[in-house]
Amino acid sequence: MNKLYVVGLGPGGACGMTAAARAALEAAEVICGYTVYLDLVAPLVPGKELRSTPMTKELDRCALALALAAEGRTTALVCSGDAGVYGLASPLLELAPAYPAVEVEVVPGVTAALAGAAVLGAPLGHDFCTVSLSDLLTPWDRIETRLRAAVAGDFVLCLYNPASRRRRDTLRRACEVLLDAGRAPGTPCGWVRNIGRGGQSARLLTLEELRGAEVDMFTTVFVGASATRVEGGRLITPRGYKR
Amino acid sequence: MNKLYVVGLGPGGACGMTAAARAALEAAEVICGYTVYLDLVAPLVPGKELRSTPMTKELDRCALALALAAEGRTTALVCSGDAGVYGLASPLLELAPAYPAVEVEVVPGVTAALAGAAVLGAPLGHDFCTVSLSDLLTPWDRIETRLRAAVAGDFVLCLYNPASRRRRDTLRRACEVLLDAGRAPGTPCGWVRNIGRGGQSARLLTLEELRGAEVDMFTTVFVGASATRVEGGRLITPRGYKR
Repeated sequence: MNKLYVVGLGPGGACGMTAAARAALEAAEVICGYTVYLDLVAPLVPGKELRSTPMTKELDRCALALALAAEGRTTALVCSGDAGVYGLASPLLELAPAYPAVEVEVVPGVTAALAGAAVLGAPLGHDFCTVSLSDLLTPWDRIETRLRAAVAGDFVLCLYNPASRRRRDTLRRACEVLLDAGRAPGTPCGWVRNIGRGGQSARLLTLEELRGAEVDMFTTVFVGASATRVEGGRLITPRGYKR
Repeated sequence: MNKLYVVGLGPGGACGMTAAARAALEAAEVICGYTVYLDLVAPLVPGKELRSTPMTKELDRCALALALAAEGRTTALVCSGDAGVYGLASPLLELAPAYPAVEVEVVPGVTAALAGAAVLGAPLGHDFCTVSLSDLLTPWDRIETRLRAAVAGDFVLCLYNPASRRRRDTLRRACEVLLDAGRAPGTPCGWVRNIGRGGQSARLLTLEELRGAEVDMFTTVFVGASATRVEGGRLITPRGYKR
Protein backbone atom coordinates (compact mmCIF):
# COMPACT_ATOMS: atom_id res chain seq x y z
CA MET A 1 0.00 0.00 0.00
CA ASN A 2 1.27 3.50 -0.82
CA LYS A 3 1.42 5.53 2.34
CA LEU A 4 0.47 9.19 2.78
CA TYR A 5 0.87 10.74 6.22
CA VAL A 6 -1.08 13.91 7.00
CA VAL A 7 0.98 15.34 9.83
CA GLY A 8 0.13 17.99 12.42
CA LEU A 9 3.40 19.63 13.44
CA GLY A 10 2.06 21.24 16.62
CA PRO A 11 2.32 24.87 17.60
CA GLY A 12 5.85 25.95 16.81
CA GLY A 13 9.22 24.35 16.45
CA ALA A 14 10.44 20.82 16.94
CA CYS A 15 9.58 20.72 20.65
CA GLY A 16 5.83 20.84 20.00
CA MET A 17 5.96 17.87 17.64
CA THR A 18 4.98 14.37 18.74
CA ALA A 19 7.32 11.42 18.30
CA ALA A 20 4.80 9.95 15.83
CA ALA A 21 4.88 13.12 13.71
CA ARG A 22 8.66 13.03 13.69
CA ALA A 23 8.62 9.35 12.72
CA ALA A 24 6.22 10.03 9.84
CA LEU A 25 8.55 12.73 8.49
CA GLU A 26 11.46 10.32 8.76
CA ALA A 27 9.53 7.58 6.95
CA ALA A 28 8.57 9.91 4.09
CA GLU A 29 10.54 10.26 0.85
CA VAL A 30 8.72 13.45 -0.10
CA ILE A 31 7.35 16.17 2.19
CA CYS A 32 4.63 18.51 0.88
CA GLY A 33 3.43 21.66 2.54
CA TYR A 34 3.29 25.41 2.67
CA THR A 35 6.81 26.90 2.43
CA VAL A 36 6.88 28.16 6.04
CA TYR A 37 6.34 24.63 7.40
CA LEU A 38 8.80 23.04 4.97
CA ASP A 39 11.44 25.50 6.22
CA LEU A 40 10.65 24.32 9.74
CA VAL A 41 10.93 20.58 9.06
CA ALA A 42 13.77 20.56 6.50
CA PRO A 43 16.61 20.85 9.08
CA LEU A 44 15.01 18.14 11.26
CA VAL A 45 14.85 15.49 8.56
CA PRO A 46 17.51 16.40 6.00
CA GLY A 47 17.69 14.80 2.57
CA LYS A 48 13.97 14.71 1.83
CA GLU A 49 12.44 15.98 -1.39
CA LEU A 50 10.39 19.07 -0.49
CA ARG A 51 7.35 20.16 -2.53
CA SER A 52 5.43 23.34 -1.83
CA THR A 53 2.38 25.05 -3.29
CA PRO A 54 1.30 28.65 -2.56
CA MET A 55 -0.57 29.35 0.70
CA THR A 56 -3.99 29.72 -0.90
CA LYS A 57 -3.68 26.62 -3.12
CA GLU A 58 -4.62 24.12 -0.43
CA LEU A 59 -6.59 21.76 -2.65
CA ASP A 60 -3.65 21.66 -5.07
CA ARG A 61 -1.37 20.74 -2.18
CA CYS A 62 -3.66 17.86 -1.20
CA ALA A 63 -3.90 16.63 -4.80
CA LEU A 64 -0.11 16.85 -5.18
CA ALA A 65 0.45 14.79 -2.04
CA LEU A 66 -2.06 12.15 -3.18
CA ALA A 67 -0.51 11.99 -6.66
CA LEU A 68 2.99 11.54 -5.24
CA ALA A 69 1.80 8.75 -2.94
CA ALA A 70 -0.09 7.14 -5.85
CA GLU A 71 3.24 6.99 -7.74
CA GLY A 72 4.50 4.77 -4.92
CA ARG A 73 6.50 7.38 -3.05
CA THR A 74 5.93 7.51 0.72
CA THR A 75 4.69 11.05 1.28
CA ALA A 76 4.00 13.38 4.21
CA LEU A 77 1.74 16.41 3.96
CA VAL A 78 2.48 18.80 6.83
CA CYS A 79 0.27 21.37 8.59
CA SER A 80 0.82 23.50 11.67
CA GLY A 81 -1.09 22.54 14.80
CA ASP A 82 -3.37 19.58 14.16
CA ALA A 83 -4.13 18.66 10.54
CA GLY A 84 -7.66 17.69 11.54
CA VAL A 85 -8.66 21.06 13.08
CA TYR A 86 -9.24 23.67 10.34
CA GLY A 87 -6.38 21.88 8.55
CA LEU A 88 -5.75 19.80 5.46
CA ALA A 89 -6.89 16.39 6.72
CA SER A 90 -10.51 17.04 5.81
CA PRO A 91 -10.02 18.34 2.22
CA LEU A 92 -7.41 15.64 1.62
CA LEU A 93 -9.74 12.85 2.78
CA GLU A 94 -12.44 14.27 0.52
CA LEU A 95 -10.12 13.82 -2.47
CA ALA A 96 -8.64 10.50 -1.33
CA PRO A 97 -11.30 8.11 -2.71
CA ALA A 98 -10.05 9.02 -6.23
CA TYR A 99 -6.67 7.49 -5.28
CA PRO A 100 -7.62 3.97 -4.12
CA ALA A 101 -3.99 2.77 -3.97
CA VAL A 102 -3.11 5.37 -1.34
CA GLU A 103 -3.48 4.62 2.36
CA VAL A 104 -3.91 7.86 4.32
CA GLU A 105 -2.84 8.06 7.95
CA VAL A 106 -3.68 11.21 9.92
CA VAL A 107 -1.05 11.94 12.60
CA PRO A 108 -2.58 14.27 15.21
CA GLY A 109 -0.80 17.27 16.68
CA VAL A 110 -1.22 19.91 19.38
CA THR A 111 -3.67 22.45 17.94
CA ALA A 112 -3.52 26.18 18.81
CA ALA A 113 -6.44 25.84 21.25
CA LEU A 114 -4.39 23.50 23.46
CA ALA A 115 -1.04 25.24 23.03
CA GLY A 116 -2.49 28.71 23.60
CA ALA A 117 -4.48 27.52 26.61
CA ALA A 118 -1.29 26.17 28.22
CA VAL A 119 0.35 29.60 27.83
CA LEU A 120 -2.58 31.35 29.54
CA GLY A 121 -3.22 28.73 32.25
CA ALA A 122 -6.08 26.26 31.92
CA PRO A 123 -9.02 28.07 30.26
CA LEU A 124 -10.19 24.81 28.61
CA GLY A 125 -10.50 22.96 31.91
CA HIS A 126 -14.17 22.28 31.20
CA ASP A 127 -16.48 22.12 28.14
CA PHE A 128 -15.33 24.39 25.31
CA CYS A 129 -15.90 25.05 21.63
CA THR A 130 -13.74 26.31 18.81
CA VAL A 131 -15.10 28.78 16.27
CA SER A 132 -13.24 30.03 13.22
CA LEU A 133 -14.02 33.68 12.52
CA SER A 134 -12.89 33.38 8.90
CA ASP A 135 -15.82 34.13 6.60
CA LEU A 136 -13.84 32.93 3.59
CA LEU A 137 -15.55 29.53 3.63
CA THR A 138 -18.41 30.15 6.07
CA PRO A 139 -21.07 32.87 5.77
CA TRP A 140 -21.00 35.34 8.69
CA ASP A 141 -24.58 34.50 9.77
CA ARG A 142 -23.49 30.88 10.40
CA ILE A 143 -20.58 32.15 12.49
CA GLU A 144 -22.91 34.44 14.43
CA THR A 145 -25.31 31.53 15.09
CA ARG A 146 -22.43 29.49 16.49
CA LEU A 147 -21.25 32.33 18.74
CA ARG A 148 -24.78 32.78 20.13
CA ALA A 149 -25.12 29.03 20.71
CA ALA A 150 -21.78 29.02 22.54
CA VAL A 151 -23.14 31.67 24.92
CA ALA A 152 -26.42 29.78 25.36
CA GLY A 153 -24.44 26.64 26.28
CA ASP A 154 -22.03 28.57 28.56
CA PHE A 155 -19.07 27.11 26.65
CA VAL A 156 -15.56 28.52 26.89
CA LEU A 157 -14.73 29.74 23.36
CA CYS A 158 -11.48 29.41 21.49
CA LEU A 159 -11.54 31.66 18.41
CA TYR A 160 -9.37 30.77 15.42
CA ASN A 161 -8.65 33.23 12.59
CA PRO A 162 -9.73 36.35 14.53
CA ALA A 163 -8.34 38.59 11.77
CA SER A 164 -6.72 38.51 8.36
CA ARG A 165 -5.00 41.13 6.21
CA ARG A 166 -8.37 41.90 4.69
CA ARG A 167 -10.61 41.58 7.75
CA ARG A 168 -9.56 43.89 10.58
CA ASP A 169 -12.82 44.22 12.55
CA THR A 170 -13.85 40.55 12.78
CA LEU A 171 -12.96 40.12 16.45
CA ARG A 172 -14.81 43.32 17.41
CA ARG A 173 -17.92 42.05 15.60
CA ALA A 174 -17.65 38.65 17.28
CA CYS A 175 -17.27 40.23 20.74
CA GLU A 176 -20.36 42.36 20.08
CA VAL A 177 -22.35 39.24 19.21
CA LEU A 178 -21.15 37.52 22.41
CA LEU A 179 -22.04 40.57 24.54
CA ASP A 180 -25.42 40.92 22.83
CA ALA A 181 -26.09 37.23 23.50
CA GLY A 182 -25.51 37.83 27.18
CA ARG A 183 -21.91 36.98 27.98
CA ALA A 184 -20.85 39.43 30.71
CA PRO A 185 -18.55 42.34 29.71
CA GLY A 186 -16.24 41.47 32.62
CA THR A 187 -15.77 37.84 31.45
CA PRO A 188 -12.07 36.91 31.71
CA CYS A 189 -10.52 36.45 28.26
CA GLY A 190 -7.06 36.14 26.77
CA TRP A 191 -5.12 36.01 23.57
CA VAL A 192 -1.83 34.41 22.53
CA ARG A 193 0.18 35.45 19.49
CA ASN A 194 2.88 33.38 17.72
CA ILE A 195 2.30 30.39 19.99
CA GLY A 196 5.49 28.40 20.54
CA ARG A 197 7.47 30.61 18.14
CA GLY A 198 9.88 33.49 18.49
CA GLY A 199 8.13 36.65 19.68
CA GLN A 200 5.36 34.79 21.50
CA SER A 201 3.15 37.22 23.42
CA ALA A 202 -0.01 36.86 25.48
CA ARG A 203 -2.45 39.00 27.40
CA LEU A 204 -5.33 38.53 29.80
CA LEU A 205 -8.20 41.00 29.48
CA THR A 206 -11.98 41.29 29.84
CA LEU A 207 -14.47 40.65 27.04
CA GLU A 208 -15.17 44.40 26.97
CA GLU A 209 -11.44 45.08 26.49
CA LEU A 210 -11.12 42.26 23.95
CA ARG A 211 -13.66 44.06 21.77
CA GLY A 212 -11.10 46.80 21.13
CA ALA A 213 -8.01 44.57 21.04
CA GLU A 214 -5.66 44.61 18.06
CA VAL A 215 -5.05 41.03 16.92
CA ASP A 216 -3.68 39.51 13.74
CA MET A 217 -3.92 36.21 11.86
CA PHE A 218 -1.26 34.66 14.12
CA THR A 219 -3.37 35.19 17.25
CA THR A 220 -5.62 32.69 19.05
CA VAL A 221 -8.31 34.14 21.31
CA PHE A 222 -9.99 32.66 24.40
CA VAL A 223 -13.30 33.84 25.89
CA GLY A 224 -14.15 32.48 29.32
CA ALA A 225 -17.41 30.82 30.41
CA SER A 226 -19.32 31.91 33.51
CA ALA A 227 -17.02 29.86 35.79
CA THR A 228 -13.75 31.06 34.23
CA ARG A 229 -11.61 33.33 36.40
CA VAL A 230 -8.12 34.72 36.80
CA GLU A 231 -6.11 33.38 39.71
CA GLY A 232 -2.41 33.96 40.29
CA GLY A 233 -2.19 35.62 36.86
CA ARG A 234 -3.60 32.54 35.08
CA LEU A 235 -6.85 32.06 33.18
CA ILE A 236 -8.61 29.06 34.73
CA THR A 237 -11.88 27.25 34.07
CA PRO A 238 -12.40 24.99 37.08
CA ARG A 239 -13.50 21.38 36.82
CA GLY A 240 -15.12 21.83 40.19
CA TYR A 241 -12.90 19.82 42.56
CA LYS A 242 -12.77 22.68 45.04
CA ARG A 243 -16.53 22.76 45.55
CA MET B 1 12.49 29.48 40.94
CA ASN B 2 11.19 25.99 41.75
CA LYS B 3 9.78 24.43 38.65
CA LEU B 4 6.65 22.31 38.35
CA TYR B 5 5.70 20.96 34.92
CA VAL B 6 2.12 19.86 34.34
CA VAL B 7 2.55 17.49 31.44
CA GLY B 8 0.02 16.12 28.97
CA LEU B 9 1.33 12.76 27.78
CA GLY B 10 -0.92 12.51 24.73
CA PRO B 11 -3.15 9.60 23.80
CA GLY B 12 -1.16 6.45 24.40
CA GLY B 13 2.45 5.44 24.49
CA ALA B 14 5.66 7.33 23.85
CA CYS B 15 4.83 8.06 20.22
CA GLY B 16 1.98 10.40 21.10
CA MET B 17 4.16 12.49 23.39
CA THR B 18 5.65 15.81 22.27
CA ALA B 19 9.36 16.50 22.50
CA ALA B 20 8.59 19.21 25.09
CA ALA B 21 6.70 16.71 27.26
CA ARG B 22 9.61 14.30 27.07
CA ALA B 23 12.07 17.07 27.93
CA ALA B 24 9.98 18.07 30.97
CA LEU B 25 10.05 14.47 32.22
CA GLU B 26 13.80 14.38 31.74
CA ALA B 27 14.25 17.68 33.60
CA ALA B 28 12.18 16.49 36.56
CA GLU B 29 13.63 14.86 39.67
CA VAL B 30 10.23 13.61 40.81
CA ILE B 31 7.27 12.53 38.67
CA CYS B 32 3.78 12.49 40.20
CA GLY B 33 0.69 10.95 38.69
CA TYR B 34 -1.87 8.21 38.64
CA THR B 35 -0.19 4.77 38.71
CA VAL B 36 -1.17 3.87 35.13
CA TYR B 37 0.64 6.91 33.73
CA LEU B 38 3.67 6.44 35.96
CA ASP B 39 3.99 2.87 34.62
CA LEU B 40 3.96 4.38 31.12
CA VAL B 41 6.66 7.00 31.70
CA ALA B 42 8.94 5.09 34.08
CA PRO B 43 10.74 3.08 31.34
CA LEU B 44 11.17 6.22 29.19
CA VAL B 45 12.96 8.26 31.84
CA PRO B 46 14.53 5.77 34.24
CA GLY B 47 15.92 6.78 37.62
CA LYS B 48 13.23 9.26 38.59
CA GLU B 49 11.45 9.23 41.92
CA LEU B 50 7.82 8.27 41.23
CA ARG B 51 4.96 9.38 43.47
CA SER B 52 1.39 8.25 42.95
CA THR B 53 -1.94 8.92 44.65
CA PRO B 54 -5.16 6.95 44.05
CA MET B 55 -7.23 7.72 40.94
CA THR B 56 -9.95 9.66 42.75
CA LYS B 57 -7.55 11.74 44.86
CA GLU B 58 -6.79 14.31 42.20
CA LEU B 59 -6.58 17.34 44.49
CA ASP B 60 -4.15 15.42 46.72
CA ARG B 61 -2.01 14.67 43.66
CA CYS B 62 -1.91 18.38 42.76
CA ALA B 63 -1.05 19.38 46.35
CA LEU B 64 1.68 16.71 46.51
CA ALA B 65 3.26 17.99 43.29
CA LEU B 66 3.16 21.59 44.52
CA ALA B 67 4.64 20.62 47.89
CA LEU B 68 7.49 18.68 46.25
CA ALA B 69 8.30 21.63 43.97
CA ALA B 70 8.10 24.01 46.94
CA GLU B 71 10.81 21.90 48.62
CA GLY B 72 13.03 22.82 45.69
CA ARG B 73 12.71 19.58 43.75
CA THR B 74 11.98 19.95 40.03
CA THR B 75 8.70 18.09 39.62
CA ALA B 76 6.46 16.86 36.80
CA LEU B 77 2.79 16.05 37.27
CA VAL B 78 1.59 13.83 34.41
CA CYS B 79 -1.86 13.38 32.85
CA SER B 80 -3.02 11.48 29.79
CA GLY B 81 -4.03 13.54 26.77
CA ASP B 82 -3.77 17.26 27.48
CA ALA B 83 -3.53 18.36 31.13
CA GLY B 84 -5.61 21.43 30.31
CA VAL B 85 -8.65 19.58 28.91
CA TYR B 86 -10.62 17.92 31.74
CA GLY B 87 -7.18 17.35 33.30
CA LEU B 88 -5.16 18.43 36.32
CA ALA B 89 -3.86 21.79 35.05
CA SER B 90 -6.96 23.65 36.19
CA PRO B 91 -7.22 22.27 39.77
CA LEU B 92 -3.45 22.58 40.14
CA LEU B 93 -3.44 26.23 39.08
CA GLU B 94 -6.27 26.89 41.53
CA LEU B 95 -4.04 25.63 44.37
CA ALA B 96 -0.81 27.19 43.05
CA PRO B 97 -1.17 30.71 44.55
CA ALA B 98 -0.62 29.13 47.99
CA TYR B 99 2.88 28.08 46.80
CA PRO B 100 4.41 31.38 45.62
CA ALA B 101 7.91 29.93 45.21
CA VAL B 102 6.70 27.43 42.59
CA GLU B 103 6.69 28.34 38.91
CA VAL B 104 4.12 26.21 37.05
CA GLU B 105 4.57 25.44 33.37
CA VAL B 106 1.74 23.68 31.53
CA VAL B 107 3.08 21.46 28.72
CA PRO B 108 0.23 20.77 26.27
CA GLY B 109 -0.47 17.37 24.74
CA VAL B 110 -2.70 15.72 22.14
CA THR B 111 -6.10 15.37 23.79
CA ALA B 112 -8.49 12.48 23.01
CA ALA B 113 -10.62 14.71 20.73
CA LEU B 114 -7.69 15.18 18.35
CA ALA B 115 -6.28 11.67 18.61
CA GLY B 116 -9.68 10.01 18.22
CA ALA B 117 -10.58 12.29 15.30
CA ALA B 118 -7.40 11.24 13.48
CA VAL B 119 -8.38 7.57 13.84
CA LEU B 120 -11.84 8.20 12.35
CA GLY B 121 -10.77 10.65 9.62
CA ALA B 122 -11.30 14.40 10.07
CA PRO B 123 -14.58 14.92 11.95
CA LEU B 124 -13.22 18.10 13.61
CA GLY B 125 -12.45 19.80 10.28
CA HIS B 126 -14.72 22.69 11.20
CA ASP B 127 -16.18 24.25 14.40
CA PHE B 128 -16.61 21.72 17.19
CA CYS B 129 -17.23 21.50 20.91
CA THR B 130 -16.27 19.09 23.62
CA VAL B 131 -18.76 18.04 26.30
CA SER B 132 -17.99 15.81 29.25
CA LEU B 133 -20.91 13.55 30.09
CA SER B 134 -19.65 12.95 33.62
CA ASP B 135 -22.20 14.25 36.12
CA LEU B 136 -19.75 13.78 38.98
CA LEU B 137 -18.81 17.47 38.96
CA THR B 138 -21.52 18.95 36.71
CA PRO B 139 -25.29 18.63 37.24
CA TRP B 140 -27.03 16.79 34.38
CA ASP B 141 -29.25 19.79 33.50
CA ARG B 142 -26.09 21.82 32.73
CA ILE B 143 -24.85 19.00 30.49
CA GLU B 144 -28.23 18.86 28.74
CA THR B 145 -28.18 22.64 28.17
CA ARG B 146 -24.76 22.33 26.55
CA LEU B 147 -25.88 19.46 24.31
CA ARG B 148 -28.92 21.46 23.15
CA ALA B 149 -26.75 24.53 22.49
CA ALA B 150 -24.33 22.40 20.46
CA VAL B 151 -27.23 21.33 18.24
CA ALA B 152 -28.50 24.94 17.93
CA GLY B 153 -25.01 26.01 16.82
CA ASP B 154 -24.60 23.03 14.46
CA PHE B 155 -21.30 22.14 16.15
CA VAL B 156 -19.60 18.78 15.74
CA LEU B 157 -19.54 17.24 19.22
CA CYS B 158 -16.78 15.32 20.88
CA LEU B 159 -18.09 13.60 24.01
CA TYR B 160 -15.70 12.77 26.85
CA ASN B 161 -16.57 10.37 29.69
CA PRO B 162 -19.55 8.76 27.90
CA ALA B 163 -19.81 6.10 30.60
CA SER B 164 -18.35 5.03 33.91
CA ARG B 165 -18.63 1.90 36.02
CA ARG B 166 -21.58 3.49 37.77
CA ARG B 167 -23.25 5.27 34.83
CA ARG B 168 -24.14 2.88 31.99
CA ASP B 169 -26.92 4.82 30.23
CA THR B 170 -25.31 8.27 29.97
CA LEU B 171 -24.59 8.07 26.24
CA ARG B 172 -28.12 6.92 25.49
CA ARG B 173 -29.53 9.86 27.46
CA ALA B 174 -27.20 12.29 25.67
CA CYS B 175 -28.19 10.92 22.25
CA GLU B 176 -31.85 11.31 23.14
CA VAL B 177 -31.26 14.98 24.05
CA LEU B 178 -29.43 15.56 20.75
CA LEU B 179 -32.22 13.87 18.76
CA ASP B 180 -34.90 15.78 20.67
CA ALA B 181 -33.01 19.04 19.96
CA GLY B 182 -33.21 18.29 16.25
CA ARG B 183 -29.99 16.58 15.24
CA ALA B 184 -30.96 14.10 12.50
CA PRO B 185 -31.08 10.37 13.41
CA GLY B 186 -28.94 9.59 10.35
CA THR B 187 -26.14 11.99 11.40
CA PRO B 188 -22.76 10.27 10.91
CA CYS B 189 -21.08 9.54 14.25
CA GLY B 190 -18.17 7.48 15.50
CA TRP B 191 -16.43 6.21 18.57
CA VAL B 192 -12.84 5.24 19.37
CA ARG B 193 -11.82 3.07 22.30
CA ASN B 194 -8.33 2.81 23.86
CA ILE B 195 -6.95 5.51 21.57
CA GLY B 196 -3.28 4.94 20.78
CA ARG B 197 -3.09 1.91 23.07
CA GLY B 198 -3.18 -1.83 22.65
CA GLY B 199 -6.64 -3.03 21.64
CA GLN B 200 -7.62 0.23 19.95
CA SER B 201 -10.99 -0.12 18.24
CA ALA B 202 -13.25 2.27 16.38
CA ARG B 203 -16.61 2.30 14.66
CA LEU B 204 -18.64 4.60 12.43
CA LEU B 205 -22.40 4.60 12.98
CA THR B 206 -25.44 6.86 12.86
CA LEU B 207 -26.73 8.92 15.78
CA GLU B 208 -29.70 6.54 16.00
CA GLU B 209 -27.31 3.58 16.25
CA LEU B 210 -25.08 5.43 18.71
CA ARG B 211 -28.04 5.69 21.08
CA GLY B 212 -27.84 1.94 21.62
CA ALA B 213 -24.06 1.59 21.47
CA GLU B 214 -22.12 -0.06 24.29
CA VAL B 215 -19.27 2.22 25.33
CA ASP B 216 -17.05 2.41 28.38
CA MET B 217 -14.95 5.00 30.18
CA PHE B 218 -12.07 4.49 27.72
CA THR B 219 -14.20 5.53 24.75
CA THR B 220 -14.36 8.94 23.05
CA VAL B 221 -17.46 9.67 20.98
CA PHE B 222 -17.96 11.95 17.97
CA VAL B 223 -21.31 13.27 16.71
CA GLY B 224 -21.27 14.95 13.32
CA ALA B 225 -22.72 18.35 12.38
CA SER B 226 -25.06 18.84 9.42
CA ALA B 227 -22.12 18.94 6.98
CA THR B 228 -20.35 15.85 8.36
CA ARG B 229 -20.35 12.80 6.12
CA VAL B 230 -18.67 9.46 5.53
CA GLU B 231 -16.46 9.22 2.45
CA GLY B 232 -14.08 6.38 1.68
CA GLY B 233 -14.79 4.91 5.10
CA ARG B 234 -13.73 8.09 6.93
CA LEU B 235 -15.75 10.53 9.00
CA ILE B 236 -15.20 14.01 7.49
CA THR B 237 -16.44 17.49 8.31
CA PRO B 238 -15.53 19.63 5.29
CA ARG B 239 -14.00 23.08 5.53
CA GLY B 240 -15.73 23.82 2.25
CA TYR B 241 -12.85 23.96 -0.26
CA LYS B 242 -14.75 21.75 -2.68
CA ARG B 243 -17.67 24.19 -3.00
